[in-house]
Amino acid sequence: MKLEKFISFFDKKLSDHLCGICSYTPFREIISYTPLVGGKRLRPYLIWELSRLTSFGSDRALKTGIAVELFHSGSLIHDDLPPIDNDDFRRGKPSNHSIFGEARAILAGDYLMLYPSKVISSLDLDHRYKERLMNLWSDVSLQVVEGEFADVTPSERTEELLSFIRRGKTASLFGFCFAAPFCVDDGSKFSEMFELGVDFGEIFQMMDDIKDATSTLQELGKTPGKDLSQDKLTLLSFRSVEQAEAMVEKRFYAFCEKITEYRDLAGELEDIFRLIARR
Amino acid sequence: MKLEKFISFFDKKLSDHLCGICSYTPFREIISYTPLVGGKRLRPYLIWELSRLTSFGSDRALKTGIAVELFHSGSLIHDDLPPIDNDDFRRGKPSNHSIFGEARAILAGDYLMLYPSKVISSLDLDHRYKERLMNLWSDVSLQVVEGEFADVTPSERTEELLSFIRRGKTASLFGFCFAAPFCVDDGSKFSEMFELGVDFGEIFQMMDDIKDATSTLQELGKTPGKDLSQDKLTLLSFRSVEQAEAMVEKRFYAFCEKITEYRDLAGELEDIFRLIARR
Repeated sequence: MKLEKFISFFDKKLSDHLCGICSYTPFREIISYTPLVGGKRLRPYLIWELSRLTSFGSDRALKTGIAVELFHSGSLIHDDLPPIDNDDFRRGKPSNHSIFGEARAILAGDYLMLYPSKVISSLDLDHRYKERLMNLWSDVSLQVVEGEFADVTPSERTEELLSFIRRGKTASLFGFCFAAPFCVDDGSKFSEMFELGVDFGEIFQMMDDIKDATSTLQELGKTPGKDLSQDKLTLLSFRSVEQAEAMVEKRFYAFCEKITEYRDLAGELEDIFRLIARR
Repeated sequence: MKLEKFISFFDKKLSDHLCGICSYTPFREIISYTPLVGGKRLRPYLIWELSRLTSFGSDRALKTGIAVELFHSGSLIHDDLPPIDNDDFRRGKPSNHSIFGEARAILAGDYLMLYPSKVISSLDLDHRYKERLMNLWSDVSLQVVEGEFADVTPSERTEELLSFIRRGKTASLFGFCFAAPFCVDDGSKFSEMFELGVDFGEIFQMMDDIKDATSTLQELGKTPGKDLSQDKLTLLSFRSVEQAEAMVEKRFYAFCEKITEYRDLAGELEDIFRLIARR
């Protein structure tokens, strides 16, 4: 399925899912706002497409994709809060706290970040596979928060810490998306796919660092130039834009080389990755 | 084990556990601060004592108790934040954000609330029991956030909503503590114990509502009289202190009646509950 088609399909399923998400209706509206505001849906798309290569199944892929997207939305809600990134815009629309206030936004973020455990623990899946998936999920969700913490308050300005931040706040979640469909069967590709996803996520974050410095509000959907104004540790703390672009290109080609090793997967993967990475 | 003795034992184990909790050391300090500031440790104590009545085992009881206590600490960190309860004190010490700032406190709360899934999914426990425990945990953790949301922004001032808040933000977590040790074997008492724990938690919260109005900062460890000054929905929104005290006493005796039905458990349960409820 092409990404554009997937986005319409996924958005409908996500909206249906959110209708039943929480028993207190005034909270449901606030929980649902950010996930439904839009987004590229790359994480669920990766799970969906990769699941065609395993026996994970489309229903489980969709549910896992919804879980990951909701977690991601929750972490963005917290990220946008005034004490953290203080951003009034997200995906081109007012951020959660600028509509509902900080108290509600904090709790909506909490709910969305905790919710995936419920989805994963309820999957109709053999217990061995579910355990594999749940263990990875619980590690990854913590790594995202750790990475975000180091991003917000870096203890030193080194490339080593930048790499830790990038892996934590962004790449580990992509690792989960790559690995999830491979939790089934003998799971032999599970760790391998996680590392491949982390690699992809690192490239994705490096591109994001560049875009923050070179895009407009309209292109970005959030306030541009914030990394610099907030003195964030990014790729551009150590490289010029030109150097950074050359570095990303090199990493991307190395990544494409790496996936040709996966003979049975290479075609599908390369299509997806080129499509996404070139956006 | 008496509660006082358990507290020393547990605090040591908790402190050891926190030494290995997160790979980014500047974050570990902030994550560890609130859990180690103290507390009555009632939730882990209940799991610990009740586990003597099943084959759950003391090691699993301790780990599950640590998980619940860390979640509880995380939710208190968020609860104390300026946009929510705005409390500079917790357990008689400065609250997390008043030492480390709001950004760090938000992320420390996130980490602590997500952490239990990792503990539970890593328990050395038969998959059927673990699945039972994990499903309950994921429901309960969401109920706590929902209850907290309704507490912070009640949509109406009714006893029905008060009851929803009480069950969500407080009682469901006690329900989990009662049920957890009974996830093993045929699990026949699992739901029953959950409801019993919810009942206990409701009485606990009703007592807390009264204490907020009648205690000093020293007795309470946090700012007293905040429910009234923040116009919170509590038992005292509908009852005088005297009426509320009579109501709690009645519910407590009904609770004690209820546990005498559990012939094999009654002795231990009654000791624990009387001890705690009378504090």
